[in-house]
Amino acid sequence: MSPAVHSPDDPIAALATPAASSALAVIRVSGPGSLAMLSGLTAPSRDLSGMRGHTIHRLRLRDGDEDVDDVLLAVYQAPRSYTGEEGAEIFCHGSLPVIQRLLSLLIRSGFRQAGPGEFTQRAFLNGRMDLTRAEAVNEIVRARTDRARGLALQRLAGAVEERIRSAREALVDLRASLEVMIDYPEEETGDAVDDVRLQAAVDLLSSLSRGARQGRIYQEGASVAIAGATNAGKSRLFNAMLRQDRAIVSEIHGTTRDWLEASVNLGGVPVRLYDTAGIRDSLDPLEVEGMRRTEEVIRAADVVVYLVDGTRGVSPEDERTLAGLSGPAIRVWNKADLPGLLPRPEGFLPVSAATADGIDSLEAGIVGAVLGGDPRDSSEPLVSSDRQRDLLDQALAALTRFSQARTRQVPPDLLAVDLADALEALGEMTGEVTSAEILDRMFSQFCVGK
Amino acid sequence: MSPAVHSPDDPIAALATPAASSALAVIRVSGPGSLAMLSGLTAPSRDLSGMRGHTIHRLRLRDGDEDVDDVLLAVYQAPRSYTGEEGAEIFCHGSLPVIQRLLSLLIRSGFRQAGPGEFTQRAFLNGRMDLTRAEAVNEIVRARTDRARGLALQRLAGAVEERIRSAREALVDLRASLEVMIDYPEEETGDAVDDVRLQAAVDLLSSLSRGARQGRIYQEGASVAIAGATNAGKSRLFNAMLRQDRAIVSEIHGTTRDWLEASVNLGGVPVRLYDTAGIRDSLDPLEVEGMRRTEEVIRAADVVVYLVDGTRGVSPEDERTLAGLSGPAIRVWNKADLPGLLPRPEGFLPVSAATADGIDSLEAGIVGAVLGGDPRDSSEPLVSSDRQRDLLDQALAALTRFSQARTRQVPPDLLAVDLADALEALGEMTGEVTSAEILDRMFSQFCVGK
Repeated sequence: MSPAVHSPDDPIAALATPAASSALAVIRVSGPGSLAMLSGLTAPSRDLSGMRGHTIHRLRLRDGDEDVDDVLLAVYQAPRSYTGEEGAEIFCHGSLPVIQRLLSLLIRSGFRQAGPGEFTQRAFLNGRMDLTRAEAVNEIVRARTDRARGLALQRLAGAVEERIRSAREALVDLRASLEVMIDYPEEETGDAVDDVRLQAAVDLLSSLSRGARQGRIYQEGASVAIAGATNAGKSRLFNAMLRQDRAIVSEIHGTTRDWLEASVNLGGVPVRLYDTAGIRDSLDPLEVEGMRRTEEVIRAADVVVYLVDGTRGVSPEDERTLAGLSGPAIRVWNKADLPGLLPRPEGFLPVSAATADGIDSLEAGIVGAVLGGDPRDSSEPLVSSDRQRDLLDQALAALTRFSQARTRQVPPDLLAVDLADALEALGEMTGEVTSAEILDRMFSQFCVGK
Repeated sequence: MSPAVHSPDDPIAALATPAASSALAVIRVSGPGSLAMLSGLTAPSRDLSGMRGHTIHRLRLRDGDEDVDDVLLAVYQAPRSYTGEEGAEIFCHGSLPVIQRLLSLLIRSGFRQAGPGEFTQRAFLNGRMDLTRAEAVNEIVRARTDRARGLALQRLAGAVEERIRSAREALVDLRASLEVMIDYPEEETGDAVDDVRLQAAVDLLSSLSRGARQGRIYQEGASVAIAGATNAGKSRLFNAMLRQDRAIVSEIHGTTRDWLEASVNLGGVPVRLYDTAGIRDSLDPLEVEGMRRTEEVIRAADVVVYLVDGTRGVSPEDERTLAGLSGPAIRVWNKADLPGLLPRPEGFLPVSAATADGIDSLEAGIVGAVLGGDPRDSSEPLVSSDRQRDLLDQALAALTRFSQARTRQVPPDLLAVDLADALEALGEMTGEVTSAEILDRMFSQFCVGK
C-alpha cells in the first residue's frame, strides 16, 4: 500500500461536533501516546494510559495552573477503537470558549489538528474498515433523507464490500486456473473457466453498477424546476408540494421574483425544488434579468415539471419552451378541478395544485424521472460514489474483454491480462490496491473530526 | 421542597449537540427504566441494565426490522450520573436523518422529549448540585470569552456555593444562640452574638454582592457605541479595534450606512461594538432615518466612545451631543498623530486610529467603564446571575436590619425574624429553599439537552 496522505501515527485532535454552543461538545484524539499526553493535562493527575478501554472518567482538564473545564473522558485502547489506535473522546461543555481553549491546549501539548477524514483514514490504514465502508461513513453523515441514511448504513455494514469480495474470490480462483494452464500448457486441462461462477460474478457487479445511478441520486439529490407560463399555477403547485410537511429550507432569490427554492424529500430523494418566474415577454429590465435566470435554473434542473393551465390549453410559447428542453420533463395539465377544463392532450398528467389532486402521481413521476426508472429493491445495496461506479464499470469492461478474447481462443497468458485489470479495479474499490492520491481525494471530502 | 416543573422521573431524551451535520452527535437519555427501554432497541439484543456504569458499548440500534445506526453507547448507573438517575449517552453519526430517526424512535419507545435544562434540573433535584452550580452549567455553555468561561467554571466548581454555605453556617449558629436567649430569657447569657463571625459573614456576602456587577458584565457582555461627527475617524477606530484578531461577527445594517456591528473581546468582556453613522444635519430622508437609528444605538449603549477630530477641535454640535449623553462616555482626541493637532482639552484621551497609538489605553478605559471600576482579583468568584445578586442583597439588607435592631436592644425573638429573612435568602441561592416558579424560570433559560 502507498504511503498515507497524513503522517500515519502522530497524535491528532479535532472537534467532532459542530462549532456552536450547545449542551455538550466532543473533542476526539487518536494516536500512540495520546493517553499519556492527556494524562499530563488532568488535575488531580490521572494515568489514563493505565485505564481500561471503553471506560468513562470524570475529570478536570488544566492548562498550566488554570482549570479549563470539568469533562467526561472516554478512554479507548488500541486496537479496540475507531482508528485502531489508542485515543480518547473528551465530552466538554458545549461552549465556544471551552472548545477553543481545549483545542489550543491540545495543540500546545503536542497534538496536531486532524485533517478532514483523518480518523477514518487511520481506521482504513489500520485495517478497521475497507474503502467502501470508509466512504459510507462520510455518506451517512451527509445523508439528507432517511432513505439515504438507510442505504449508507447498509454500505457501512459492509453490503457492498461483501459483494465485491465474493466477485473477487471468483476471479482469483479463475486466475489460479489460468495460471495452471500457463505453467503447464502441455497438459490437456481443457478450458478451465467455471462459466457459472464467472457469470455470477459478472451479474453481481452489473447489478451494483446498474444501481449506482439511483444510489448517487439518493445520496446527492436532484434538482427539479417547476416551469410554465405566468398564471399556470406554478407557485400554487410549489406550495402544495411543500405543504406536506417536508420543506426544510426555503429562500427567496433576487430582488423581484427570480425564483423560490426549497428542499423536499420525495420518496427518499432529497430534491431541491425551484419555483421559477413565469416565462413571458417583458420590457422591464428587472423582469428580463429574472427571465434569464429562470432559464438558467431550468437548464440546470435534472427534471423540469412544465405546467400548462388546462383551462387555456397549450400556447405557441409553451410549445416553443417544451421543444427547447433538453432533459427529462413532466408535462402537467393543471387546474384539473375547474369546470372549463379543455380536453387533455396525450402525455400530460392531470393535476390540481388547488385541491392537491394528482400531486401524488406527479411526485411518483418525478421520482421515477430523477431515478431513471422504478426505485430498486431496498434490500439490495446501492453504490453511491462515482469512484466506486467507475471502478465497477472498469472491472465489467475488463471481464467483457476477457469473455470476448476467450471466444477468439486467445492464449491464457493474454486472457490473464484482462483478468488482472478486473481484479485491480475491484481491489481499488475496497482499498486493497490504492494510492496516496486516491486516499487524498477521498478523505478531503470528509468533515474534520470524522 | 416544592414539586418540580417537569414530571420528576419519567425517562427523557434530547439531542445534546447542535442539530447540524458533523462527525458525531450525542443523544442523552435519563430516567428509571431508560436502560431497559434502550435494550429493546439493540440488535443483536443487549441487556444494558446489567452493564457497569461508565462503560461504552458498540452496538446497532434498530427501529422494528430496520437498522437505524451503528453507535457507541455510554451506560450510566444511578446514582453515579449527571442527573443521579440511570441513563445513557448515544454517540451516533452526526447526520440529520440519523438524529431525527433516533429521536423519533426514542419518543415512540416511551421516552419523553426533555425540556430545556431538564437534565440539570434533575441533577439539582437529586442532590447532585446546588442551584449556584446548576446556574453555572448554563453560564459556562453560554460564555462568550475565555474569562467568562473561567469565572463560570469557578462557580461550577462550587466557589459561590462554599461561601454561601459558610456564611449560612455562621448565621445558623447565631440563630441557635438567639434561641437559647428566647427559651431561657431569665438566664444571664448576655448578648450571645459572636460579632467577629457575624462581621466575617457580612463581609463575605458584601464582597460577592459588589462583584456581581462585574460578574454579570463578563457573562452577559456590554455594548459600546463609537460616535462623533462625520470624518472624526470612527470607522477607522472601529477597524483598528477589530484588526487585533478578535472580531467574531460583523454585519452591515440598513441599506445605506446606519451602523456596523461586531463582537470583540475586550479584556475578557464580550463587547458588541457599534460604528455609527456620522452625526450631521441632512435633508436626505434616508440619512435622516439613519441618524435617528444612530441615536437609538447610542442611547442603548452601555458606554459611548465619542470621537473628536483633534485637528479640528470640539464643535458646538459635539458639545450638544456630549451634553445629551446620559450614560458613561469616553472622550477621544483622535488623529493624535497628525502635525496640525490642536491642544487637547482636559478629559480627552489622545488616540490615533490610523497608527493604533493610544488604542490599548482606550480599550482599558472602556473595560473600566463597563465594569464600573478595575477588574476584580481573578481568584475571587464573581456571581453573574441577577437572581443570586438580588438574594445576596436581600440577605445583606436583613443583616443590616438585624444589626440596627441589636443596637436598639430589640428583644431576641424580634431579632430572630431578621435573621430568618437572611437565612431564607441564602437558602434560596443554593436551592435549599425554592419554589416551582423559581426553578421553572431558571431552567427555561437553559438549552435543551443540558
